[in-house]
Amino acid sequence: MATPHGIIQTPQLVVVGTQGTVKSLTPKDLEEIGVGIVMGNTYHLHLRPGEDIVEKFGGLGKFMGWGGPTMTDSGGFQVFSLGVALEHGVGKFLKENDETLAKPRLNKITEEGVTFQSHLDGSKHKLTPESSISIQEKLGADLIVGFDDLESPKHSYEETKKSLALTNRWLLRSLQAHKRKDQLFYGVTHGGKFKDLRIESAKFVDKNFPAIALGGAHQSKKNMYDVIDWTVQNSDPLKPKHMLGVGEIDDIFNIIERGIDTFDCVIPTRLGRTGFVFVQPPEGNVLNRFRIDIQKSKWANSKLPLDKNCSCSVCQNFTRGYLNHLFRARELLAYRLATYHNLYFMVSLIKKIRSSILEGNFMKIKKNWLIP
Amino acid sequence: MATPHGIIQTPQLVVVGTQGTVKSLTPKDLEEIGVGIVMGNTYHLHLRPGEDIVEKFGGLGKFMGWGGPTMTDSGGFQVFSLGVALEHGVGKFLKENDETLAKPRLNKITEEGVTFQSHLDGSKHKLTPESSISIQEKLGADLIVGFDDLESPKHSYEETKKSLALTNRWLLRSLQAHKRKDQLFYGVTHGGKFKDLRIESAKFVDKNFPAIALGGAHQSKKNMYDVIDWTVQNSDPLKPKHMLGVGEIDDIFNIIERGIDTFDCVIPTRLGRTGFVFVQPPEGNVLNRFRIDIQKSKWANSKLPLDKNCSCSVCQNFTRGYLNHLFRARELLAYRLATYHNLYFMVSLIKKIRSSILEGNFMKIKKNWLIP
Repeated sequence: MATPHGIIQTPQLVVVGTQGTVKSLTPKDLEEIGVGIVMGNTYHLHLRPGEDIVEKFGGLGKFMGWGGPTMTDSGGFQVFSLGVALEHGVGKFLKENDETLAKPRLNKITEEGVTFQSHLDGSKHKLTPESSISIQEKLGADLIVGFDDLESPKHSYEETKKSLALTNRWLLRSLQAHKRKDQLFYGVTHGGKFKDLRIESAKFVDKNFPAIALGGAHQSKKNMYDVIDWTVQNSDPLKPKHMLGVGEIDDIFNIIERGIDTFDCVIPTRLGRTGFVFVQPPEGNVLNRFRIDIQKSKWANSKLPLDKNCSCSVCQNFTRGYLNHLFRARELLAYRLATYHNLYFMVSLIKKIRSSILEGNFMKIKKNWLIP
Repeated sequence: MATPHGIIQTPQLVVVGTQGTVKSLTPKDLEEIGVGIVMGNTYHLHLRPGEDIVEKFGGLGKFMGWGGPTMTDSGGFQVFSLGVALEHGVGKFLKENDETLAKPRLNKITEEGVTFQSHLDGSKHKLTPESSISIQEKLGADLIVGFDDLESPKHSYEETKKSLALTNRWLLRSLQAHKRKDQLFYGVTHGGKFKDLRIESAKFVDKNFPAIALGGAHQSKKNMYDVIDWTVQNSDPLKPKHMLGVGEIDDIFNIIERGIDTFDCVIPTRLGRTGFVFVQPPEGNVLNRFRIDIQKSKWANSKLPLDKNCSCSVCQNFTRGYLNHLFRARELLAYRLATYHNLYFMVSLIKKIRSSILEGNFMKIKKNWLIP
């Protein structure tokens, strides 16, 4: 995919830099790692530092010192997190039987848009299709996303249908509001777990938008893969397809196999900050989710690198024992080194997958990784 | 100064890496910055991860991945911080009229050594001259320090004299316990603010030890400079002299001028983590202590680098506005970038001072920096 800030090889991980920084890393680190594109979050950047400041610096990329392609989301997921997601105690995936997570909403949805309380200071704000697009134009990313309403995975068919209809009206208003010609505009598909709604949504977005983002919170991994199939099979194969907020290592194989071009995910960075580091097969497998907990005492004396076959600068220079110490001592360097490794690990895996597709042996690599 | 891990150019900053890491930075960063030597703290490394683990990795340098020279302190200052420093509400410098800081001691001093409660979990530990040296031998730094008792700056002449006598007995026991031949052993001078005690201490350490560390908490900057003069004038000019736990930018000029070769200080790193970044004259001066508070709202829109004349990678690639945002958002990258800049700034200043000494224009540079 060509953008004003360079080519994005696909499939590609969109690395999440929520507040205009990939936590603990510099743009130079991202270059070394081979990162292809960085995403900033519209909700967070709107609240702090504000899109007007980012615009004054020449947009998100220039503000953060990253010369490559950038993407912003619509803010829809974050206002969902403050609303029905709180009320139902759910996140990106349904958590079964966990009513204890339920809390009062901090948002209110009307036809016009969503009013919500800032997670920073409780102050009141509003996002509408028009304001989401205005913010995203000022942030100036290469790829942007239309404003959407997220259904809860606990919603009924009727509720989901109603939410989808609202999303579609908001998407058309988003498109109407969008003036910049140098940004690729993604419509977002919704419809929850329901096949007919997902197909209707895919056709609607395909008809009206140059690029397709797959949205929503999901019932299960299985249902998410079905959703991808229903969407891909009912839209233009040449249109770029972005999967929002996914995935784990096994997801990567499964979503790429189904036709996803790009996907954004906090997993490598967030896991890194909590002391979970990725390891390749045979040590890593679907059962341990390709990760070890570096804080476990069994690593305190280990001179092994984080991953035995990784060529990143962390694995070349540091031991599991040292990382174990850094995490136990809550040292800043811990988060940086684990984040660097995890991103390098995932970017390299996706690079390997890209080559495997060109060489026709994707299924072989998938089997090597996913079948223990 | 030649060490088993390379030459230390003097005067030189000993960069503090308390827990076996210079907070947020990698050894490669330290090399880029031009750091000459790193200090680990005996007290902290003893408690976590423990000297036995560090020894298994080949010592402090290998454990943290730093190939250059290293130093450890005696642990004396930390047990002082848990003892009379708490009781008197004082730190490295006397705080006048601040009785509110006074708290109960967490240590107990006997002829044998100091028992204390860990700041981590309240568990009981003991440090003696013999155990401090045993720990420092296992940590394996190139420069080590004999175990000392710290007087409070509020202590009377008699109390200070008694503390100095204990320090001297502990220093001789420390030397007696030291078996490794590849570590340079620093005796520590004490005697508080009192000229005759400081002279007695300087002569004692000079007579018994190959290198001299100037210790203790200080009454004032003026008194600290006097202490240096009394010590330097009463000891072998060829013996290396290390100033423990100092200094600010103005101190650097003043202590180097008086004959100090090396000094360790947390100021550049700690200030960096709290959002204070160093700036050169004319923006920086003795009145603003050569620093700006990057969190102030006036920097939110600034496209200036942190320091206008700095050639570090942070100043080449990032703006004050971006750093302002990172600090306000409490992003990990904030601490890393400010730490990097502050260390680069101080290391570069000291390099400039080294050249100025060789070229005979030290006083000119001192005047340029210290006279507004």
